[in-house]
Amino acid sequence: MSDARLTPVASDNFAFGLWTIGNIGRDPFGEPTRPAMTPAEFVRGLAKVGASGVVFHDDDLIAPGSSAAEADKAKAEFRAALDETGVRVTTGSTNMFSLACFKDGAFTSNDPAVRRFAIAKSLRAVDLASEFDAEMYIFWGGREGMESGISKDPRDALERYREGINYVIAYAKDQGYGMKFVIEPKPNEPRGDTFLPTVGHALAFIETLDDPSVVGINPEFAHEMMANLSFYQGVAQVLWHGKLFHIDLNDQKASRYDQDFRFASENLKENFLLVRLLENAGYKGTKHFDSKPYRNEWGDGVWEFARNSMRSYLALAAAARAFDADPEVKEAMAAAGVGDLAKPTVGKYSAEAAAALKSEVIDFAALGKRGYYNERLDQLMIDHIMGIRPR
Amino acid sequence: MSDARLTPVASDNFAFGLWTIGNIGRDPFGEPTRPAMTPAEFVRGLAKVGASGVVFHDDDLIAPGSSAAEADKAKAEFRAALDETGVRVTTGSTNMFSLACFKDGAFTSNDPAVRRFAIAKSLRAVDLASEFDAEMYIFWGGREGMESGISKDPRDALERYREGINYVIAYAKDQGYGMKFVIEPKPNEPRGDTFLPTVGHALAFIETLDDPSVVGINPEFAHEMMANLSFYQGVAQVLWHGKLFHIDLNDQKASRYDQDFRFASENLKENFLLVRLLENAGYKGTKHFDSKPYRNEWGDGVWEFARNSMRSYLALAAAARAFDADPEVKEAMAAAGVGDLAKPTVGKYSAEAAAALKSEVIDFAALGKRGYYNERLDQLMIDHIMGIRPR
Amino acid sequence: MSDARLTPVASDNFAFGLWTIGNIGRDPFGEPTRPAMTPAEFVRGLAKVGASGVVFHDDDLIAPGSSAAEADKAKAEFRAALDETGVRVTTGSTNMFSLACFKDGAFTSNDPAVRRFAIAKSLRAVDLASEFDAEMYIFWGGREGMESGISKDPRDALERYREGINYVIAYAKDQGYGMKFVIEPKPNEPRGDTFLPTVGHALAFIETLDDPSVVGINPEFAHEMMANLSFYQGVAQVLWHGKLFHIDLNDQKASRYDQDFRFASENLKENFLLVRLLENAGYKGTKHFDSKPYRNEWGDGVWEFARNSMRSYLALAAAARAFDADPEVKEAMAAAGVGDLAKPTVGKYSAEAAAALKSEVIDFAALGKRGYYNERLDQLMIDHIMGIRPR
Amino acid sequence: MSDARLTPVASDNFAFGLWTIGNIGRDPFGEPTRPAMTPAEFVRGLAKVGASGVVFHDDDLIAPGSSAAEADKAKAEFRAALDETGVRVTTGSTNMFSLACFKDGAFTSNDPAVRRFAIAKSLRAVDLASEFDAEMYIFWGGREGMESGISKDPRDALERYREGINYVIAYAKDQGYGMKFVIEPKPNEPRGDTFLPTVGHALAFIETLDDPSVVGINPEFAHEMMANLSFYQGVAQVLWHGKLFHIDLNDQKASRYDQDFRFASENLKENFLLVRLLENAGYKGTKHFDSKPYRNEWGDGVWEFARNSMRSYLALAAAARAFDADPEVKEAMAAAGVGDLAKPTVGKYSAEAAAALKSEVIDFAALGKRGYYNERLDQLMIDHIMGIRPR
Repeated sequence: MSDARLTPVASDNFAFGLWTIGNIGRDPFGEPTRPAMTPAEFVRGLAKVGASGVVFHDDDLIAPGSSAAEADKAKAEFRAALDETGVRVTTGSTNMFSLACFKDGAFTSNDPAVRRFAIAKSLRAVDLASEFDAEMYIFWGGREGMESGISKDPRDALERYREGINYVIAYAKDQGYGMKFVIEPKPNEPRGDTFLPTVGHALAFIETLDDPSVVGINPEFAHEMMANLSFYQGVAQVLWHGKLFHIDLNDQKASRYDQDFRFASENLKENFLLVRLLENAGYKGTKHFDSKPYRNEWGDGVWEFARNSMRSYLALAAAARAFDADPEVKEAMAAAGVGDLAKPTVGKYSAEAAAALKSEVIDFAALGKRGYYNERLDQLMIDHIMGIRPR
Repeated sequence: MSDARLTPVASDNFAFGLWTIGNIGRDPFGEPTRPAMTPAEFVRGLAKVGASGVVFHDDDLIAPGSSAAEADKAKAEFRAALDETGVRVTTGSTNMFSLACFKDGAFTSNDPAVRRFAIAKSLRAVDLASEFDAEMYIFWGGREGMESGISKDPRDALERYREGINYVIAYAKDQGYGMKFVIEPKPNEPRGDTFLPTVGHALAFIETLDDPSVVGINPEFAHEMMANLSFYQGVAQVLWHGKLFHIDLNDQKASRYDQDFRFASENLKENFLLVRLLENAGYKGTKHFDSKPYRNEWGDGVWEFARNSMRSYLALAAAARAFDADPEVKEAMAAAGVGDLAKPTVGKYSAEAAAALKSEVIDFAALGKRGYYNERLDQLMIDHIMGIRPR
Repeated sequence: MSDARLTPVASDNFAFGLWTIGNIGRDPFGEPTRPAMTPAEFVRGLAKVGASGVVFHDDDLIAPGSSAAEADKAKAEFRAALDETGVRVTTGSTNMFSLACFKDGAFTSNDPAVRRFAIAKSLRAVDLASEFDAEMYIFWGGREGMESGISKDPRDALERYREGINYVIAYAKDQGYGMKFVIEPKPNEPRGDTFLPTVGHALAFIETLDDPSVVGINPEFAHEMMANLSFYQGVAQVLWHGKLFHIDLNDQKASRYDQDFRFASENLKENFLLVRLLENAGYKGTKHFDSKPYRNEWGDGVWEFARNSMRSYLALAAAARAFDADPEVKEAMAAAGVGDLAKPTVGKYSAEAAAALKSEVIDFAALGKRGYYNERLDQLMIDHIMGIRPR
Repeated sequence: MSDARLTPVASDNFAFGLWTIGNIGRDPFGEPTRPAMTPAEFVRGLAKVGASGVVFHDDDLIAPGSSAAEADKAKAEFRAALDETGVRVTTGSTNMFSLACFKDGAFTSNDPAVRRFAIAKSLRAVDLASEFDAEMYIFWGGREGMESGISKDPRDALERYREGINYVIAYAKDQGYGMKFVIEPKPNEPRGDTFLPTVGHALAFIETLDDPSVVGINPEFAHEMMANLSFYQGVAQVLWHGKLFHIDLNDQKASRYDQDFRFASENLKENFLLVRLLENAGYKGTKHFDSKPYRNEWGDGVWEFARNSMRSYLALAAAARAFDADPEVKEAMAAAGVGDLAKPTVGKYSAEAAAALKSEVIDFAALGKRGYYNERLDQLMIDHIMGIRPR
């Protein structure tokens, strides 16, 4: 990989959330394993490893219940670090999952007072995101779900979910904030089952909002893997709908708890396909590493984790370029008919064309006697991922 | 369950596909275990067990490559059985998965000639469905997928998928057929990954069709379970979008191969929630049991399977009615705030209301100090499923 | 279920761990939702709901780092509650997962000093368990695993795991403690992958210990479900090996994060099969509900959860008795040949018998033409679970 | 990878089963897509691609119901191809899953006559395997399972399973055949649940056989992945028990139907860890590729698949060698303490040592304040897999 650039530049648009690299390592079975980092320390660390963006929830910056003075101080320190380093805030969000009051959901809690609080909190978080010029705002409904299916009518929950999102967006538009919005789906955990479990469910939901044009998807690798779906295919469908506004990169073994491992540490083939897709589609949005160092990491190891997240993305992008430039790959793609799928089959309907088509006598047995040479093509991809073929 | 009706009547709208009860028991590892049934025998059997509807793919009725005379004979025998028994065809479909030519997909095969054939075959199948007055037509893209992610750009595949569906629907409308259409999602098997893997992905896709109004979803229990999603929540979202046009009932252990077990043989709680939802939502469409007897079943055992599929539905419906009528349940629902979720949280946006809301000082810690009593409510549901409480 | 006993008695041997009912509801995404309970309050609550046993880890009773005086006080208060209520300690264990030092494992940490500490802590915990007359001690290696497969040679880890367990058992025997020991398997979470992931792996491991006779299995419903295995079959194999010394009852959707839901709240069929197996096998050991109330539960709701855990067990046991007594079930069991499987096929090997057997001409096609009537038998089971048939 | 050998030699001990490369592509939803190959054609093809071994079930070579003359002809043609090419039979097995009579199991069918037939068939298959000098014989109990848990007592099934295996082995030993035996576990498919679902369950079972010394495990990548277990860890435990007698290499997405994809086509990290383990452990047994070409493959593509299966193994072995030779890796392994896990923690128990250990005052908080640097080590592995570091 002699010519590959493996260190990030600003235009890579790599960002990390305040809760990621600095994660303190608390899990359901154990106490924290690392000291907390302040947002300013975090930003300065980001700058050192070459990331250009930062993502935050309101509570990551300003602890719930802070006084106005405390909030101002927190913001000032954060801004100073941003100014000093040139790191920019790409994305804001509202934490609607940590406080005990959200235990039954936020926009979809059965308690109307909790729902009001969730919306009020979101309005303030939108202000905060705007104050830091975030261009994107994430709705992650981590607690919008249920353990017992009888505890909510999911149709009511979707109605309330929509109401909350519409309200927050209306407010942001009314304030003249230019940000766009994304929904981040997840199938389960921390709730038994979550509403809007996959990118598909969220895409469909968006079409029912007051203004679908400002709302896209924030697909997360680990979340789709939890439903054992192909993240690559999911992102491709999101792109096809014109809704890839943001992306959360990490990794995960399928059908397990939310592992949030380092990007490209588990599923190299799926990671390769994804990076190639993003690069070839010209995706320019934020690439957010929503992941955390292994819980037994310590000290500078957490920054090693950050550096490697970005490095693997760049390595995969280089491998994808080499793959696409390889003449043998081009030949194998042609043999597999990959390009043929881009051509219309029958074109627009007409009665005459349909009649003609219907009466065609087709030797379907003969159509079955050909190969698609996917074994060869797939192996060429594996060889490029493994660096066996020239890069 | 003294007052429960456990035998089906016509208005239950229970249907079985020609490939279900009569399944010959061939699987990837073994030869058939049961003799085939003719469509006419199947229909007469259905009538005996009290089912009112039948579903078919073109090839179930007329073997591919049949002469016109053979086709006419097959149709005449089938119609005679329908006329004799009063069983009606509810639903048609095209088999685009059995022939070897579909090994790389049908509407999304990389081979344009296969794609043409798939559309032509669909046009003829729509004619056939219409000839038997089917009110619904299913698109099941069983082979629309891939093993190697590099073999197709999923965006091209979605483009071709849309083209094929638009064309078939345009034809049906042009012919004046009054049928509606449904898409049946599945995450994988027989392909490594399938396009439109869940009801969510299909709902979003429908909105991109030329005429979304005539296209709904045919959710299948086993298919959503293969992605380890809650079928109950999935169907609820489909209903919420107004797209529940048809339903496939069966059962399955989650995250496994496509088992197609007897309805309500595995997930009683999810089955109860589903039946209660369908009944309370007033769903009137076809309830299609897309399942097959255990492969070691024989003789009349396959009809026992059919009877029990319907019987369990009716038993669960009775349990749901008893549950909803139980005063203790009503009280528990109120304590859990289930009804409160149906009420708007903040209503329509206005700048004044938002300003007021934003400035509300809310004691969020206090909001966290309440229970939702889901344990009690969930147990009452379990008790009703188990028949512990009076029915 | 007119004659069914649904309230527990002492001989039911129902126990709860100190960390279960009193769980404070902290999860990876949120803060506690309930106040903590003292061990004494817990024991008094247990007595009220009719449970007879309590299980603890050393740290549940005595916080790590407590002074001798603090430890004595904690023990005295606990013992007073036990004496007052008649609740007895059935089982002890060592917490080797909460402290930060265990982040890389306990007996299998790569740090020898951590391993020493883990063994020392276990010796003290065995003393504590013995002091309260626990008859059983659980090894749960929650942190014995890894995220990155390269970070440990699993063979070394198994070697160290064995060393640790052998040492602790040798100590307990040397002290004259009469307790037995169980290993509790789990496939993953909190580690990416755990050593001894299923009951099978643990059964095989036990045979390599210095004294396998005193070591059995503590299978947990949720843990086997996380590997999408049948818990019923797993427990049956454990029984077959004579190794069912203890059992952890709870519930869980398969292939998901560790949900620890109320026993019999999710998989009624598997729960029924399990309870029938335990009852018919005459299992007399502790039935430990290792589960926790939904996180949105509060106040007395957590005791409702406890009551219902036991109640469902008793209801399923009653259903199993009714099932086994049902003449129609007996007939269906005979038709399915269930009893025939208990009879030897060929008996002990002899050269003559083998020669005769080998030369038998068997009409294998004819053998295939019979049914096993599992559809009918399975439906009878479903009917009994649902209370449709007379109890 | 300049110095890496990517073409196989005899000592690699690579084998393919008669049902693998030549698989005709029939699946539950579709007809065959490829013509069948004769065993002799298969062997000649194997020789061309450089594989040295072949595996067969009795029925792969001699169709059930063949006359003695037909059997002799089949054997003669097969032997001629073996003699001509130097390919050797490594492994035999009995097909106890294809015939309809096995629909309820073979050794564990509820029908005693089926069980007798299964044992008789196995005796003849052992003769056949021996006739071709197979050094290994596989028990794969594909149908030893159930859909409905009530249809068999799993303890009876294990009893019959053991009886069958003991009988077959007693016969083989009595005949003086020198072969060893392996059990191949699988969690489900084609049965709802299979007995002996994982390598762990099978390891424990082996210890109950009459002569455990001649029986090992044949772990299959795809099968353990279906239970979402780490294959690498599973194989490591099998090695630790001294029971890795044979291995089935293929690939698969976790928690899905049995995909049997080309080795190293899906899980490169797990594949790397596995190959490194096998190579470093000095495993010399057969490496059997139990996989099949994608169903849309055709013609020479199926041999491409075979070549690539072996090539990827060799490429991963070369990457593993480079990884282990990399000085930076050695340093990272030391920092992670990988080698420290090989050292005893406390050694053999003595009362004095235990007393001393128990009284050690350990600063457990200090023990938590270190890192294990797994992020760096894991990334070095990823870099080696991707060929970013020098090979």
